[in-house]
Amino acid sequence: MTETCHGRAVVLLSGGIDSTTALAFALQETEECIALTFRYGQKHIAEVEAAARIAREMGVKKHLTIPIPLGEYVASALTARDVPVPAGETTASPTPSIPATYVPARNTIFLSYALAIAETTASGSIYTGVSSVDYSGYPDCRPAFIRAFQNLAAVATRCAVEGKPVKIKAPLQYLNKAETIRAGVRLGVDYSLTLSCYEPDEDARACGRCDSCCLRRRGFEEANVKDPTPYVF
Amino acid sequence: MTETCHGRAVVLLSGGIDSTTALAFALQETEECIALTFRYGQKHIAEVEAAARIAREMGVKKHLTIPIPLGEYVASALTARDVPVPAGETTASPTPSIPATYVPARNTIFLSYALAIAETTASGSIYTGVSSVDYSGYPDCRPAFIRAFQNLAAVATRCAVEGKPVKIKAPLQYLNKAETIRAGVRLGVDYSLTLSCYEPDEDARACGRCDSCCLRRRGFEEANVKDPTPYVF
Repeated sequence: MTETCHGRAVVLLSGGIDSTTALAFALQETEECIALTFRYGQKHIAEVEAAARIAREMGVKKHLTIPIPLGEYVASALTARDVPVPAGETTASPTPSIPATYVPARNTIFLSYALAIAETTASGSIYTGVSSVDYSGYPDCRPAFIRAFQNLAAVATRCAVEGKPVKIKAPLQYLNKAETIRAGVRLGVDYSLTLSCYEPDEDARACGRCDSCCLRRRGFEEANVKDPTPYVF
Repeated sequence: MTETCHGRAVVLLSGGIDSTTALAFALQETEECIALTFRYGQKHIAEVEAAARIAREMGVKKHLTIPIPLGEYVASALTARDVPVPAGETTASPTPSIPATYVPARNTIFLSYALAIAETTASGSIYTGVSSVDYSGYPDCRPAFIRAFQNLAAVATRCAVEGKPVKIKAPLQYLNKAETIRAGVRLGVDYSLTLSCYEPDEDARACGRCDSCCLRRRGFEEANVKDPTPYVF
């Protein structure tokens, strides 16, 4: 069904439903995965712990958690202590507004790092869990963005010049949240390991109110899959 | 002669001839510049001090020096303590080989950060000093790379979605080193502030042997401009 990509892959793993499902695709389609997680100044740092748990449980050979300075240079509700994360779903397809949780150039920076590490480790592909169906309207989750980054990767590196550009894989690009969850369940993903919430409490319990929680909750409902998430509300 | 770009610009400033000349262009063409310098694990850290000196002397309003983890994740003679910087010029147009000093995805990462900061500061453009004439054969200095990043910037951010994408300016793209130096002299650049060397000594004196020194020395010769560089050899 999906194209088999041999060799090694770098997988962007934030610890949520989408990146974990993308990791499951990568583990199925490639021989070895390197998972990348970023500490970029996000307030919901519990997702980094979730990512470590997921990488371990899913048998990822190498998991890199890279601390990068980003939160201190950009304006976003996900990084600024004095900007609240909005409650409620912000998706408004087909012309989504871009919510306060948007982090400028975040996926561009993440993919750029993934590109550096893919080239260094001779990995043929980068997997990202972006989706443009049930999403928050972030510009750097859309097909046009992924295509543009693919075109950039095709000229940016030594391996590209040598005829082996790194490929960008976005297996969830056209799946809604329910379809993503169903695909993940088929691939054996244990979603109780994942964390989507932007404002988890001290025990890493999901708030149940933020955009990310709303999308998650509705996804499980529509997929007819039991939601394992301990929501506070 | 050059297009006037109003407003604010983010300028990638490494401290060498090219980025300093690009800064001079940006200062002429825009109202306000934010200079960005990266500590990415380069052994020739003296260039960061040069960048600070240049930003100060050239009246840059804001200069950010951002430490990013890169050297520890990639393989390059510019970052690995156990890999020597090769002596001699490595340029071999029109099919340049890519030397050991190539740093995987470096310009992609630098431009991605510049994009995040440009969006956050409402800057309309990013200036980079890349050139594809007298250069070291790095894939991420070529016109195809800059075009691809421009296309990425046109879809990656909120400001792009709102119809105001950040523009990528590479004023030296088609200039050789001598032409760059002549342009810089016309713009009032004091090249004694700059450092090109990949292996400066403890007093920040240029080795005179590395690829970057060779390109620099020949540039001043061909430009008929007195070379202010204190070379060791």
